Amino acid sequence: MVRDVTVGRDFVVIAGPCAVESEEQAFAAARAVRDAGARMLRGGEFKPRTSPHCFQGLEEEGLAILREAGRLTGLPVVTEIMDTRHLEIVCECADVLQVGSRNMQNFALLKELAQAGRPVLLKRGMNATIEEWLGAADYLLTGGNPDVILCERGIRTFETYTRNTLDLSAIAAVRELSDLPIIIDPSHGTGRASMVAPMSLAAVAAGADGLMIEVHPDPPNALCDGDQQLTPAAFTDLASDVHAMVGFMRAPQGASGGPTPTTRS
Amino acid sequence: MVRDVTVGRDFVVIAGPCAVESEEQAFAAARAVRDAGARMLRGGEFKPRTSPHCFQGLEEEGLAILREAGRLTGLPVVTEIMDTRHLEIVCECADVLQVGSRNMQNFALLKELAQAGRPVLLKRGMNATIEEWLGAADYLLTGGNPDVILCERGIRTFETYTRNTLDLSAIAAVRELSDLPIIIDPSHGTGRASMVAPMSLAAVAAGADGLMIEVHPDPPNALCDGDQQLTPAAFTDLASDVHAMVGFMRAPQGASGGPTPTTRS
Amino acid sequence: MVRDVTVGRDFVVIAGPCAVESEEQAFAAARAVRDAGARMLRGGEFKPRTSPHCFQGLEEEGLAILREAGRLTGLPVVTEIMDTRHLEIVCECADVLQVGSRNMQNFALLKELAQAGRPVLLKRGMNATIEEWLGAADYLLTGGNPDVILCERGIRTFETYTRNTLDLSAIAAVRELSDLPIIIDPSHGTGRASMVAPMSLAAVAAGADGLMIEVHPDPPNALCDGDQQLTPAAFTDLASDVHAMVGFMRAPQGASGGPTPTTRS
Amino acid sequence: MVRDVTVGRDFVVIAGPCAVESEEQAFAAARAVRDAGARMLRGGEFKPRTSPHCFQGLEEEGLAILREAGRLTGLPVVTEIMDTRHLEIVCECADVLQVGSRNMQNFALLKELAQAGRPVLLKRGMNATIEEWLGAADYLLTGGNPDVILCERGIRTFETYTRNTLDLSAIAAVRELSDLPIIIDPSHGTGRASMVAPMSLAAVAAGADGLMIEVHPDPPNALCDGDQQLTPAAFTDLASDVHAMVGFMRAPQGASGGPTPTTRS
Repeated sequence: MVRDVTVGRDFVVIAGPCAVESEEQAFAAARAVRDAGARMLRGGEFKPRTSPHCFQGLEEEGLAILREAGRLTGLPVVTEIMDTRHLEIVCECADVLQVGSRNMQNFALLKELAQAGRPVLLKRGMNATIEEWLGAADYLLTGGNPDVILCERGIRTFETYTRNTLDLSAIAAVRELSDLPIIIDPSHGTGRASMVAPMSLAAVAAGADGLMIEVHPDPPNALCDGDQQLTPAAFTDLASDVHAMVGFMRAPQGASGGPTPTTRS
Repeated sequence: MVRDVTVGRDFVVIAGPCAVESEEQAFAAARAVRDAGARMLRGGEFKPRTSPHCFQGLEEEGLAILREAGRLTGLPVVTEIMDTRHLEIVCECADVLQVGSRNMQNFALLKELAQAGRPVLLKRGMNATIEEWLGAADYLLTGGNPDVILCERGIRTFETYTRNTLDLSAIAAVRELSDLPIIIDPSHGTGRASMVAPMSLAAVAAGADGLMIEVHPDPPNALCDGDQQLTPAAFTDLASDVHAMVGFMRAPQGASGGPTPTTRS
Repeated sequence: MVRDVTVGRDFVVIAGPCAVESEEQAFAAARAVRDAGARMLRGGEFKPRTSPHCFQGLEEEGLAILREAGRLTGLPVVTEIMDTRHLEIVCECADVLQVGSRNMQNFALLKELAQAGRPVLLKRGMNATIEEWLGAADYLLTGGNPDVILCERGIRTFETYTRNTLDLSAIAAVRELSDLPIIIDPSHGTGRASMVAPMSLAAVAAGADGLMIEVHPDPPNALCDGDQQLTPAAFTDLASDVHAMVGFMRAPQGASGGPTPTTRS
Repeated sequence: MVRDVTVGRDFVVIAGPCAVESEEQAFAAARAVRDAGARMLRGGEFKPRTSPHCFQGLEEEGLAILREAGRLTGLPVVTEIMDTRHLEIVCECADVLQVGSRNMQNFALLKELAQAGRPVLLKRGMNATIEEWLGAADYLLTGGNPDVILCERGIRTFETYTRNTLDLSAIAAVRELSDLPIIIDPSHGTGRASMVAPMSLAAVAAGADGLMIEVHPDPPNALCDGDQQLTPAAFTDLASDVHAMVGFMRAPQGASGGPTPTTRS
């Protein structure tokens, strides 16, 4: 339960920029996603980048901006934590703490977050089996934190057309092996803005509990991952389609032609 | 165009047993899938098996059974061809010739099928990039056969919970790179009967042109791939849900709440 | 046993061009590898290429050239067969029939080669597990052909710096699971001429029974895979180093400091 | 330079148990590897385990034992650090700080270790490309720590016979792209004690600067990774063979038949 949102019961769309770049950019993105119906705001301040010479995020300054963006829009905030020593300052900003793909097996971090008193969104490692992912979640659960949200974000394969291979079968697997809610990140999962809409609808149809989508007011000039971020207009269209699909999936069978209950989670 | 079905315009469900095992089994499966609304019948007689000590298929006897099953039900028949020397006998049975995953880059076979005068269903190699898959299709197209149907059936990754990782983003990729229709095989794509329904609905939502689904009258006693074959009853439920989802996806926006046209193929 | 070479007892270096391009090119390569100590000559006439618009090989004309190159140098010839209908013409040229990576599970071809009366060099599929590879070999063995030589040529992974990832642990795995000889192809295994020498020495040290190496008189102008082909001069240096390493590995312990017998095959 | 060992000039064998389990076990392993010629001692106290219900290591107690084992044998100590908050206590024990595969992109940790004043052994992520690995090393170098040792320990692929696929071509790749020394961990790279010896020799032949090998006095009763740990007797044999192979590789050409200089690092 994050404020008035119960993840796993309510369908939840989390949206916002890959990285917080400035007040102007973050506020524009936050208002756009709120207006389109997103239930939570995401943004990154500590960015895990392959090279130390790439933009590393605004760090503490970014946290303050994101907190203000959350306050302005009334949206709960999701942001990544990469360092146990940042726990206090990140908790001042974030309603939900995200563990990124590269830190899924950072067990020191997981043990600390088990005691943090905040829900944790645990991204699947790009190389992690489903068993290893649930093992990482178990560090949180066993350690005392029952509020874990799983997030599939694509696994690394030989295919290069997409940035990762989005494994939607993970939704069904998690249903079989766990009671935890699972959301899908089609932005990292494909790395291509053009693929975010079809994979979002597919995720809903497969029974996902939510989506996490990157939105930027000006993707071509984004400081990070511009190829995969949606414009506010594209996100607004997508949010409408997702809303319709959620309605279809949850409709009583026969009434509106929704699928049989067994195909839903 | 296969008889009255135009693949790429009509949504097409192809179903039937993994392997033809007997008249009784094949006829029961064929009637069940026809009654549930399948548009084509599939079945295998020459089975590519990892070991020579496994069931290899009924071969020519199986072809005769499958032809008769098609005649009885009025369904066009799809079956795999593995050897250029079988072309004549397979064409006596099959309306559509399937190239299996292991033969996607069997260029001798592709060159022969380019001249076969039959539509070809080209499965993606379990290790093939989308570029290589379209390259294989180009052997058929350049060689003179315009009727190529692509079929995604899962790629090989490190994950072991599923038999393969079904790559639904291939649907969007094929849309961007080609005009060919693409269907999805969730049976091989997951290897688990329990996952066939959610992944089928996801495939429709992602814009697929059809599905290929394995159905067996008695999966626990199947001679081949029993874990991934649906019972006739499960297939009937699924076909109904797929029909509803296709209707939703193709409904005019606003009327029934279907998604915006850009999210469809 | 191929003429006077007993694969599995004698260390065997197979070398020659990726593709036969002309008499001049093939004869130059053949003489160079013979003079450097290669025990067999390789060359390709039917080339499996991703796109039909790439060079497909000289086909029957190439077979005649390769046969003549073998006669001139006195070397046994290894060449790939891709189509059961080519068996007769390929056997007129080849002492050893190669099954390429893309055809490892072309079971129609394997069943035919089981009766061909020629040794078969079976390349590992780029996506094949060791178990599947040995299963493919079993089609040859069970079908009546005891002369099977396994060849590891790299598997497909996420790494892109190398063309494939050469799996030298396959040598030890094959020793544990089979009595068949195994050779290594570092040319396809790395896709980079600069890596062929270190990986060749590593293969010998890991206990391989031989090497298959691509050599071209003029790699920058090769019609196929120029990046991975060695010049005759580079091959001559490598062959000398390989000879020294084989001597070291096979020396009695203590005498020349060779390793203990258990570390050899 | 770690005490009297210059990594990259001297060939360095690092050995010891996967996990420190008790004084008795650690001292026995340390003495055995010292007597067999190892140049450094390894051991783990904070173990990254898939499930929180597995043995997690002796933690601070283990550090004290490992420090004492190093003192008794005179060997420098290598051990893993997983948490920035452990830096001080780990530095009291360790001469070289190891970053494990799961933490290769734990950038908070890397930034801290860049200032730690200790050499860092940076394991390749099981899913990391060589470019990403060198990017991680660049966090250490750019941050002020010039003493980085790379360690290849196998990448994750579809193959299941081995625990990982040991990528020896990484040695040649690192030579081409960097000046950093690279060592090989065949224990994790294969997951099978029977494969450690052939892959160790292959690593030396490919030009590695060292090896990291797990040794346990009683592998069948190890608390962690028993299948891949060598007995002291097996390690003694292997160390002797490695010594001979290093001598062969470094011998002047012609004298003892060593390979040409270009094939060495």
